Amino acid sequence: MIDNLIDGKAIAAAIHEETAREVEALLKQGIQPAVAFVRVGEDPASKVYVGMKEKMAAKLGIKSILHILPESTSEAELLTLLNKLNADRSVHGILVQAPLPKHIDQARVFETVLPDKDVDGFHPVNVGKLLLGDTHGFVPCTPGGIHELLIRSGVETNGANVVILGRGNIVGKPMASILMQKGPHANATVTICHSRSRNIGSICRDADILIAALGVAEFVKADMVKPGATVIDVGVNRINDANAPKGYRLVGDVDFNAVQPIAGKITPNPGGVGPMTIAMLMKNTVRAAKMANLKQ
Amino acid sequence: MIDNLIDGKAIAAAIHEETAREVEALLKQGIQPAVAFVRVGEDPASKVYVGMKEKMAAKLGIKSILHILPESTSEAELLTLLNKLNADRSVHGILVQAPLPKHIDQARVFETVLPDKDVDGFHPVNVGKLLLGDTHGFVPCTPGGIHELLIRSGVETNGANVVILGRGNIVGKPMASILMQKGPHANATVTICHSRSRNIGSICRDADILIAALGVAEFVKADMVKPGATVIDVGVNRINDANAPKGYRLVGDVDFNAVQPIAGKITPNPGGVGPMTIAMLMKNTVRAAKMANLKQ
Repeated sequence: MIDNLIDGKAIAAAIHEETAREVEALLKQGIQPAVAFVRVGEDPASKVYVGMKEKMAAKLGIKSILHILPESTSEAELLTLLNKLNADRSVHGILVQAPLPKHIDQARVFETVLPDKDVDGFHPVNVGKLLLGDTHGFVPCTPGGIHELLIRSGVETNGANVVILGRGNIVGKPMASILMQKGPHANATVTICHSRSRNIGSICRDADILIAALGVAEFVKADMVKPGATVIDVGVNRINDANAPKGYRLVGDVDFNAVQPIAGKITPNPGGVGPMTIAMLMKNTVRAAKMANLKQ
Repeated sequence: MIDNLIDGKAIAAAIHEETAREVEALLKQGIQPAVAFVRVGEDPASKVYVGMKEKMAAKLGIKSILHILPESTSEAELLTLLNKLNADRSVHGILVQAPLPKHIDQARVFETVLPDKDVDGFHPVNVGKLLLGDTHGFVPCTPGGIHELLIRSGVETNGANVVILGRGNIVGKPMASILMQKGPHANATVTICHSRSRNIGSICRDADILIAALGVAEFVKADMVKPGATVIDVGVNRINDANAPKGYRLVGDVDFNAVQPIAGKITPNPGGVGPMTIAMLMKNTVRAAKMANLKQ
């Protein structure tokens, strides 16, 4: 077994420890960071994710308030709740769990959350600040988490060729925003590929850092990876498997077994990017609490 | 002489004609689009640019109001003026001419202009919307103009390799945002290069469309261009020239004479990108007037 794994669990645990210490310091000043989770409907994956976030918040001393709305909730009702949470000074962060029911305009919802409470980093003003290099906004949790993985694993981004597979609003685009900036832990030459890209294989083979966030099971094969490259797997894909207890198993966007021997460093999946998302959410919540406190 | 020029003057003229017709239609409804120009100090280039914008507005039937503030204006004074213009319903668009004096925080200024009046497209919320693929925001004029040049010259972006030289907030970053989107006239594989990039030459040679916005005189040489590629030159650089009447001449980021014979299509400079910026500004102003009218 080659020891080239980027241990997301261990790095996330280190960040959680830092966050817990920050919460402790805030509690001494009489401030308890508080985040509101909003879940609409009973999507099983959403229930699991929100449950994990609640548990971690409790563990770190962060207060969380869960609002569960029925699937039939209208957009107007959801926006009314968000406006109430926006106005509530005891709430520092607001997270609306995606996906939302189809009759609700997701962009509208993300735009309604106050930018200063937008711990998910999805509000256009935070998206814009990230691209502009203005560090006062919130960074979306998954790309923010990948950035921490790179930094804490000693992966040099300065002058590196970074290829991002996937141009989604949650991972691909903000990831590009982070790594193209001027400054330490950035300064990368960034290429964004997607379903319409030609010669993806040869573009990937030029990457010093390859970040796969396409949502295509085991898309990245061994012959697409430059020997020694860092490979980050963001994908969570369900594939049918008659031998698996549930009839399916989860795989990433990277053909891990084939790519690991070639990669310089690689994230396992699970246990790579996944744990980082929640770590960054907690970190963002504490930051929101500090910001709110500075403004009072 | 090879006839591979992208005629920015002619394309800008066509857009101005469309804009004039839209203004005419609005005037019939009793609406005159109005834009406020704000100039701080007496920077000679700024005076020329604002003068050109005023003249073009007048020609198209757009009302413009020029506010000239002294170099010594404080940031607070400038923000007070902007807030007044934000509140003034007879003003549809606001443009603050850059560069601003050094004692004024430019980001703060751009954030103060109401997003709905931000005809320059510099407010973070408009920057964010552009990256997210939300078409309700304003597109910055220079990259928006380059996009029109590509569309109206029949340059296919779908699946094309686009290399952007320069990661500035005014051109490079929003240009990438436009061309990486899903959809017609976009869908490109976008790479952003900058001063820290390695192997720029070989990256450029892979480009089907090469957009130079680095601000380095004649940086793009013939051996950096793939035969048949489209080359867009955004640069305006002053180089010393004892034989020129003013002791200097203006050149682009592309070594035009060397690159033209190789390029499939190329913008002259001047006469390529330059005229498009003002055309898009006028177009944005009319759009702002329409949006304001819809909201009333």
